Amino acid sequence: MSTISPLAPASFPELPAVAGVQLATHEAGIRYTNRADLMLAVVPEGSTVAGVFTQSLCPSAPVDWCRSVIGSGRSRAIVCNSGNANAFTGAAGQTSARLTAETIANQLGVSAEEVQLASTGVIGETLPDDRLAEGLLALSTQLAPSNSAGWQAAANAIRTTDTFAKGASAEVAYANEIGGETFTVVGIAKGSGMIAPDMATMLGFVFTDAAVAPDVLQTLLSETVSKSYNRITVDSDTSTSDSVWLFATGEASDAPITSVDDPRYEGLKECVLGVNLDLSHQIVRDGEGATKFIHVTVTGAETDDAAATIALSIANSPLVKTALAASDANWGRIVMAVGKAGEKADRDSLEIRIGSELVAEKGWQAAGYSEERATEHLQNDEVSISVDVGIADGEATVWTCDLTHGYIEINAGYRS
Amino acid sequence: MSTISPLAPASFPELPAVAGVQLATHEAGIRYTNRADLMLAVVPEGSTVAGVFTQSLCPSAPVDWCRSVIGSGRSRAIVCNSGNANAFTGAAGQTSARLTAETIANQLGVSAEEVQLASTGVIGETLPDDRLAEGLLALSTQLAPSNSAGWQAAANAIRTTDTFAKGASAEVAYANEIGGETFTVVGIAKGSGMIAPDMATMLGFVFTDAAVAPDVLQTLLSETVSKSYNRITVDSDTSTSDSVWLFATGEASDAPITSVDDPRYEGLKECVLGVNLDLSHQIVRDGEGATKFIHVTVTGAETDDAAATIALSIANSPLVKTALAASDANWGRIVMAVGKAGEKADRDSLEIRIGSELVAEKGWQAAGYSEERATEHLQNDEVSISVDVGIADGEATVWTCDLTHGYIEINAGYRS
Repeated sequence: MSTISPLAPASFPELPAVAGVQLATHEAGIRYTNRADLMLAVVPEGSTVAGVFTQSLCPSAPVDWCRSVIGSGRSRAIVCNSGNANAFTGAAGQTSARLTAETIANQLGVSAEEVQLASTGVIGETLPDDRLAEGLLALSTQLAPSNSAGWQAAANAIRTTDTFAKGASAEVAYANEIGGETFTVVGIAKGSGMIAPDMATMLGFVFTDAAVAPDVLQTLLSETVSKSYNRITVDSDTSTSDSVWLFATGEASDAPITSVDDPRYEGLKECVLGVNLDLSHQIVRDGEGATKFIHVTVTGAETDDAAATIALSIANSPLVKTALAASDANWGRIVMAVGKAGEKADRDSLEIRIGSELVAEKGWQAAGYSEERATEHLQNDEVSISVDVGIADGEATVWTCDLTHGYIEINAGYRS
Repeated sequence: MSTISPLAPASFPELPAVAGVQLATHEAGIRYTNRADLMLAVVPEGSTVAGVFTQSLCPSAPVDWCRSVIGSGRSRAIVCNSGNANAFTGAAGQTSARLTAETIANQLGVSAEEVQLASTGVIGETLPDDRLAEGLLALSTQLAPSNSAGWQAAANAIRTTDTFAKGASAEVAYANEIGGETFTVVGIAKGSGMIAPDMATMLGFVFTDAAVAPDVLQTLLSETVSKSYNRITVDSDTSTSDSVWLFATGEASDAPITSVDDPRYEGLKECVLGVNLDLSHQIVRDGEGATKFIHVTVTGAETDDAAATIALSIANSPLVKTALAASDANWGRIVMAVGKAGEKADRDSLEIRIGSELVAEKGWQAAGYSEERATEHLQNDEVSISVDVGIADGEATVWTCDLTHGYIEINAGYRS
């Protein structure tokens, strides 16, 4: 179970400091033993925050808490526990969430409403409030300025069934009238399946030292999430706790970005998108039982959203995913998945490619199609499927993994 | 692969004759050897027909053909080949469909537009027109009045990856001013996964000797399909060829049913629904790799449609299906599936039952919940999950099977 995914990166990346961000981890023994299960990140006064939360209608208690306080766009800290999702835990869950925020707030001398919360792990079990409170007190004494070792420890503390820790960074430099600025973006994430067994949750924590007004930060985060985390799928399931945060400390700039028309906005957005794409791809690479990383690109759709719907229909089809697991160029299943997506597609001008091999065109198998070449491409551990649906210019790429015995093995196993 | 599903009925049922229906089967060698792969059913002049076809936007050539001619509500014959779906076969596929209809029409002395078509099997390969034509000529000489052996032979001829032949019947009797009538309904079906590997298609052929006007027949069929075939799921995939027909020969009645207010309508509809439910459950019981037959009932939803959406979200969740395969009472996954369905649900008044065991209520694990009792229920090969979402009175039941290594084994195998 704890074997590292064959699609994992060779090692955890060297991540730079983000000015103003302090990190801590602690072993509280909430569910796991012999590993850290609490993570705290603290940002300086004046920092801004944006968040994107699960669309589940049965959200966890921490998600309820975060939604109720994030409107201010201001936050000083985020704390995450692993091993217990504090989801579907009723009134007790709400109390645990509030206690967690208050405990950390008291330690830092900020208000509870300035503390964001994340929990990931089993659903339906209440948190052990005593062990948690004790752990939180110890946690807040461990704070140290962010650095490569700190990021790696934080990325490890938030893991549940993840087989490797996930981190990414990007930088962008501007020359300007006040002499030049460099913005750094660092993110860590967890996730292994949209919802891992009952180890629920995909979580992303992204930090930058840019100065960004809250509404602009929210726009920036939402736009990048829609093109990264919302374009990946392992098993089509959505957790009660999925959340992504972007914190901006402002330490690298005296002039905040207060509009999307600021010349620095696009560059910063590219960095955040790059980090979010990298992290979301790492989540797919840690997909339960995954042996192949799959790019699905749809072009020629009515709109970009329609293209994404069709691409997700392909990427979520168990029949497509099992075929790819077997390196089987079974393109009839791709036609099926396009047909069931419910978005406009012209059957008789459909073009399908496996890698660079043209498989089908004009409603029929392509004249020069070689199943041998298609199969050869599919034997790689990174493969691509491209479909042009022949309607207009909408396009989208989504990323997924194959569906193997490993997935069944992991998910049909007992929890204990 | 050809091992009979552990959930199969003990034997094929004894099916009665339907007055006016003649059947034939023939071994044409389209793809399979040593088995019949053509089925023909002929009904008398004056018979009516209704059809419901796949919502796929990439439908097969026979589906295109049927849609273009079924508007008349009149049909004299339906012919089905197994082994090749004639889907995504371009202009050649359209030609094969027309040739098939014309060949049968010429033999029977009817018009091609009075012939309905079904094909099931591989996608993307053209039909061998010469062998098909030869087979069709032989087929039409084999016609005999429907009887138990004939229905079984027909149900076998339409199989692809099905591990058992599927048939069902029902009867309803009326005493009335003209002395009394008895209507018989018989159906056969094929399907094993919403789309079996590249052996695409769920098909249903239902016949009655009642006399029913075309528009009433279509209403009756549509209403029963929405509560039977549209409430089952094996793997959430939809084929290019899914079709269900209802033929009414009128041989058992001199007074046709011309309105849904006819006192005989509801009784006949119950019969057709019963046959369609029985056949659709048999399809689930033949689900690829299935070891459990699962009832998912949702109550308390905003509408019946909302209840069906939530029930399908549970029934299609790979995480729920793998848990059930392992008899694991992992109810957090049910909460997750309710939450992602996108329909109104009140997290804090959700009630979940596994069999009769109350698992969760009021947004929390139920006080008297026994995981042992829930697990014991899940060890049966027929299990039930019930969820009340606490909003209004909408309700629906859907049926599915578990997700096992068998599904991966079957679908990750090479086609040849």
